[in-house]
Amino acid sequence: MSFRAPVQDQLFCIKELAGIDQIAQIPGFEDAGFETAQAVLEESAKFNEGVVAPLNWSGDQDHGSWDNGVVKASPGFKEAYAALAEGGWQGLGQPTEYGGQGLPKTIGAACVEQTMAANLSFSLCSILTGGAIEALLTAGSDELKTRYIPNMVSGKWTGTMNLTEPQAGSDLALVRSKAVKQEDGTYRISGQKIFITYGEHDMTENIVHLVLARTPDAPEGVKGISLFVVPKFLVNADGSLGKRNDVYCASIEEKLGIKASPTAVLVYGDDKGEVGAGAIGYLVGEENRGLEYMFIMMNAARYDVGVQGIAVSERAYQHAVAYARDRVQSRPVDGSAKESVAIIHHPDVKRMLMTMRALIEGERAMALVGAAAYDTAHNHPDAAVAKQAQTFYEFLVPLIKGFSTENSVEVTSLGVQVHGGMGFIEETGAAQYYRDSRILPIYEGTTAIQANDLVGRKTSRDGGATAKAIAGQIADCEGQLAARGAACQKYAKQLKAARESFLQVVDFVCANAKGNPNAVFAGSVNYLMLTSNLVAGWQMGRALMVAEDKLAAGEEVPFMTAKIATARFYGDHILARIASLRDAILDGGDSVTAMPVEAF
Amino acid sequence: MSFRAPVQDQLFCIKELAGIDQIAQIPGFEDAGFETAQAVLEESAKFNEGVVAPLNWSGDQDHGSWDNGVVKASPGFKEAYAALAEGGWQGLGQPTEYGGQGLPKTIGAACVEQTMAANLSFSLCSILTGGAIEALLTAGSDELKTRYIPNMVSGKWTGTMNLTEPQAGSDLALVRSKAVKQEDGTYRISGQKIFITYGEHDMTENIVHLVLARTPDAPEGVKGISLFVVPKFLVNADGSLGKRNDVYCASIEEKLGIKASPTAVLVYGDDKGEVGAGAIGYLVGEENRGLEYMFIMMNAARYDVGVQGIAVSERAYQHAVAYARDRVQSRPVDGSAKESVAIIHHPDVKRMLMTMRALIEGERAMALVGAAAYDTAHNHPDAAVAKQAQTFYEFLVPLIKGFSTENSVEVTSLGVQVHGGMGFIEETGAAQYYRDSRILPIYEGTTAIQANDLVGRKTSRDGGATAKAIAGQIADCEGQLAARGAACQKYAKQLKAARESFLQVVDFVCANAKGNPNAVFAGSVNYLMLTSNLVAGWQMGRALMVAEDKLAAGEEVPFMTAKIATARFYGDHILARIASLRDAILDGGDSVTAMPVEAF
Repeated sequence: MSFRAPVQDQLFCIKELAGIDQIAQIPGFEDAGFETAQAVLEESAKFNEGVVAPLNWSGDQDHGSWDNGVVKASPGFKEAYAALAEGGWQGLGQPTEYGGQGLPKTIGAACVEQTMAANLSFSLCSILTGGAIEALLTAGSDELKTRYIPNMVSGKWTGTMNLTEPQAGSDLALVRSKAVKQEDGTYRISGQKIFITYGEHDMTENIVHLVLARTPDAPEGVKGISLFVVPKFLVNADGSLGKRNDVYCASIEEKLGIKASPTAVLVYGDDKGEVGAGAIGYLVGEENRGLEYMFIMMNAARYDVGVQGIAVSERAYQHAVAYARDRVQSRPVDGSAKESVAIIHHPDVKRMLMTMRALIEGERAMALVGAAAYDTAHNHPDAAVAKQAQTFYEFLVPLIKGFSTENSVEVTSLGVQVHGGMGFIEETGAAQYYRDSRILPIYEGTTAIQANDLVGRKTSRDGGATAKAIAGQIADCEGQLAARGAACQKYAKQLKAARESFLQVVDFVCANAKGNPNAVFAGSVNYLMLTSNLVAGWQMGRALMVAEDKLAAGEEVPFMTAKIATARFYGDHILARIASLRDAILDGGDSVTAMPVEAF
Repeated sequence: MSFRAPVQDQLFCIKELAGIDQIAQIPGFEDAGFETAQAVLEESAKFNEGVVAPLNWSGDQDHGSWDNGVVKASPGFKEAYAALAEGGWQGLGQPTEYGGQGLPKTIGAACVEQTMAANLSFSLCSILTGGAIEALLTAGSDELKTRYIPNMVSGKWTGTMNLTEPQAGSDLALVRSKAVKQEDGTYRISGQKIFITYGEHDMTENIVHLVLARTPDAPEGVKGISLFVVPKFLVNADGSLGKRNDVYCASIEEKLGIKASPTAVLVYGDDKGEVGAGAIGYLVGEENRGLEYMFIMMNAARYDVGVQGIAVSERAYQHAVAYARDRVQSRPVDGSAKESVAIIHHPDVKRMLMTMRALIEGERAMALVGAAAYDTAHNHPDAAVAKQAQTFYEFLVPLIKGFSTENSVEVTSLGVQVHGGMGFIEETGAAQYYRDSRILPIYEGTTAIQANDLVGRKTSRDGGATAKAIAGQIADCEGQLAARGAACQKYAKQLKAARESFLQVVDFVCANAKGNPNAVFAGSVNYLMLTSNLVAGWQMGRALMVAEDKLAAGEEVPFMTAKIATARFYGDHILARIASLRDAILDGGDSVTAMPVEAF
C-alpha cells in the first residue's frame, strides 16, 4: 500500500509542542519558522512518498548482492540516492559553509522520520553519512573537513561508522584494530570490523569510513582508542579520486530485516587495494580521544535510531489501518449491524490500532521536543539557556532511543496481528516491518546500554536533579490540566500518579546506585520504559490541551478530535503501564539476581 | 546449538502440580503413574533431541518446494516422520482399539511440547493429524473410523483441518465451499481452502482432509456448515489406495516463519484427479453440524497451539542462555571483577532470561494442570467430578492458547535481544524462533477470538461462577502460602492483590457484557492476559511451596533452588503486570472506542 507522510501530526508537534517559533528567534534560524517547516515537510513528503517508499518492499525482496568484494545495491537505490542528493536532503541540517541548508533539527528530524518510514533500509545510508559528518565537524582538522565534508553533505559520497569487532560490541574497550603512524603523518590501519551498515555499496563513487583503532603504544581500554578517516578511494589534493585503499568487504550478512541495507564485514590491511598492506587513514582530532568523539556522534545516531522506531511504527500503523478498513469479517459485538463489517469496527482491533497510534504520537512528540532542545542547546545565545537545554536533551536521548525502539517491536507485532493470517504471509508486507524493527533496540547501543546511561550519567550522577526538575515541569502541566474540563482532569490524575511513581523510582535509583548497583541495574530497563512513558505522556497531556482549544476554535476539527481521543487513550492505557513497572523496580531487584548463574 | 528436552520441569509439573498419581487412579490409566511418565518423557527426549531437533534450522533454510501441485517436504522430514510413526509417538494418547497407547494427555502433552520445541514446523503435521483423528472419533461413523483412524494413529497417513477460505477466517459463517450429495451417499466437494497446514506433502502415501462445506439447501451462517472427510487418494474397501481424488494444491505460501511446514492453497473440484469433477467426500456425523464437531477438535487444537507457545519459548530460552554463558562483554556493574565477564552475569541479561524462564514455567504448569483436568473430565467415573473438571478445562483453554502464544512473541523477542547484534543475523538461529512464534497468536483463533470466548462462553454465561470458583481456590492457596516463611508470605500478598484485581474485572465483565459490550470487548484481551497471568501465577505459588519442602528435604537441590528463584521472580515481575491491566480494563473502555473510524 502507498505511504503517506504524517505531515499534519509532525507540524502539530513542531508548532505546538516543540515551539518552532521560539527556535526561529535564535540567531541563524530566523528563516526557520512554522511556514518554512510546513513548506519543507510538504516537499519532503512528495519526495519520500514518490521516490523512496516504492522501493521498500522491492528492496526487501531483492536486496542487492555481494560478489568478490563488490556490493550491488538493491535495484533503484542508486537512483533514489542520487535524487536525495539532488534534492538537498542530505544537507538539510548541515552548516551552510559546507553546502548544507542549516535548518534546525526540529525540522530536519521530521524529514528524516519520513524517509525512514518510507524505506528504513534506504534511509540508513543517509543517516550514517550524517553521523560521519557530525564526527568530522566535531573533531576533524580543517583540512579533513574541507576535503571530505562538502562531498558528503552534497550526497556525492557516503559515510560509515566502524566501531564493532567480533569481540567488541557493547564493550568498545575490547577494540583491537591497529593504527600505525607513518613518517608522512598518515596511519596504516589493519583489523576486522563487523556490522558496518552500508560499509560497501555502488550507490556513490566513494565511501568515507570513520574507524576506531588503537595505536601501538596506546593505553588499554577505552582511553586508548583513536578515530580515523579511511576513504575507500584516496582523495587527491585537487579533490579527484586516487588509489583504491586497502579496505575490503569480505561479506555481507543475511539478516532478519533491513535486508536492503548491506551490513558489511570490512577487512583493513589485507593488501587488497592499490596502496600496499594497510589501509591509509587520517587521524581525527587527537590520538586516544576517539571514543569521546565517537560518543558525540553516537548521541546523534541514538536519537536517529529512536526516530527509526517511530518511523517503522508509523508505516506499520498505516498498513494495518488500511487492512482493517478493507477486511470484512464478523458482525459487531454490540449488535449494531446484522451483516459482517470491516474489522476496524471491532473493539479489539480498535484497541490494537489505538495502542499503535498512541505510542507513535507520544514518541513523536517527545522526539521533536528533544530536537528543539538540541537546537536551543547548540545555538541559543544565552549560555544558561543553552546549558539547560543541553541537559534536558541529554536526558531525553536514551528515552527517545529506548522507548521508541522497544515499542516499535510491539507496534509492528500488533500490525501483524491486525492482519490475522494474512500478516504472516510475506507478500502482505506487514511482516517486513516486524522484521525490520527488531534491530532497533539493539544497534547504536542496546536498550540496556541506554538504560545504563539513564541510570548513571543522566540520573544518579547529579543526584536526580535533572530528573526531578523534569518532574517539576510535569507537575506544572498537571496543574494546567486540572484547571480544565473532565477529560483533562482525568489526564491530570493519571499523569500525577505516573509522576509520583517516577519520583519513587528516582529516589530508589539515587539511593542504591552505589550501594546496591545490581538491584538498580536489574530494574534499569524498566526505569527507562517508565520514565520515557511519563515524558511522552506529559507531551500528550500538553497536546490534549492544545487540541481542546483548537477544536473549540473550530480549527482542523477531524485532526484535533482524533488527537483528543488518542491522548485520552494514552492516559488510560499507556500511562497505566507505569504502576506495574514501578512495582517491579522497587520490589523486584533481588529476584532478578537471585538465580545462580549455573542454574539457568 | 543442541536442544535439551525440559524433562525435569515437565516431570515436576506432572507430579507435583497436575497430580499424575491421581490421574493414575482413574480406570484405564492404572499404568500411567509417575514412573510411566518418567520413562515415556525420557524416551521422548531421546527421539526429539536426536531425530527432530537437528532438522529445525535446516528446515527453515531449505523448506521444501512446490512444483505443479506436488510438494516436496524439507530434506529429512519424511524420514523423521517415519521414525515418529515407528516410535508410536503419533498414537501416544489415542485409544488402544485403534492402535494407540491410550496414555493420558497429562503425559502426552509433555511429549508433544518436546517435539514442538525440537522443531515447530515438523511437529505441526503430527498435531494436525491428531486433530483430524479427534474429529473422526467424536463424530465419525464406525465405517469412517475403521477405514481412516488406524492408519492415522500409526503415522502411515496424515490429516488436515480445512476451515479457512479467502473470505472466511475468524468468521466461519462465511464459508462457501460446496458439497453436493450423490446417489451413492457420498458428496462432491468444490471450493478453495487456504492456510491449510501440511495440506500437501510427500511424507506419507495419503492425506486425510477434514473439510467444512455447505450442502445446496443448507441454512445460511454457521448452522449450515457440514464436515466431510476428503482423502487425497480414495481408500478401497480392502484398505488399499484407489484413485487420486479431485483436490489439488495450487500453491504454498511464502511465510514469515514455520517455513518448513507447507501452508497450502487447496482447490477442490477442478477436475484434476481421477474421479471426474468434484472431490469425493464422506459426511462426518450429520449435515449442518460441522462447526460443532470442528469446535470440539478446535479446543484440542487450541490447547496444542498454546503448548507450541511454551515450546518455542523454551527453545529460544535455551538458545539465549547458551549465548549468554559464552559471550564475554563488559565488566560487572557491581565491580566484582576487573575483567569482562560472560554477559549472563549482567543484571539486565538476567532480567531478560528470568522473564523468559518465569513465563515458560508458569505457562507449562498451567498447561499441564489443564491436561490433568482434561483427563479427569473425559475419564473420571464420578460424573460430578468429571463435569467440574470439564468446566475448569474449558475455562483454561483460551488462557493456555492466548497467554502462551502472546508471551511467546515476547519471549522469542527477548531471545533475540540477549544475542545483541548477533541475534539479527539469521545464521545465529535466534531470529527463527522470533519468526516462527508470530503465527501462534493468530492461528486456531486469534487472541481476540480466545478473549471473546473467555468473556462470553466462559465468564459471563454463568455469571462469573466458574471464574469466582477458581478465585476461591486461589484464595486457599494464598492461605497456605501466608502460613509459611517470608518468600511465601510475600508471594501470598502478590497473589492476593492479583486475585482481587481479577475479581474486580470479572464483576465488570459480568455487569457490562450485555449493557456495554463494546467496553467489555475493548478490554477482552487484557482480561485474558490478566486472568491467565493469575492462573499461571497460582501454579507458581503452589510450585514455590513444593520446592521449599523438597529443598528442605534435600531433594533435587539445584532444581528446587532454581524453582524458588523463578517463582519469586514470577511474583515480583509477572504478577506485577496485573495492576496495569486491571486499570486499563476498568477505566479504559471508552477511549478505545471513542475514535471515529474515519479518523484512524
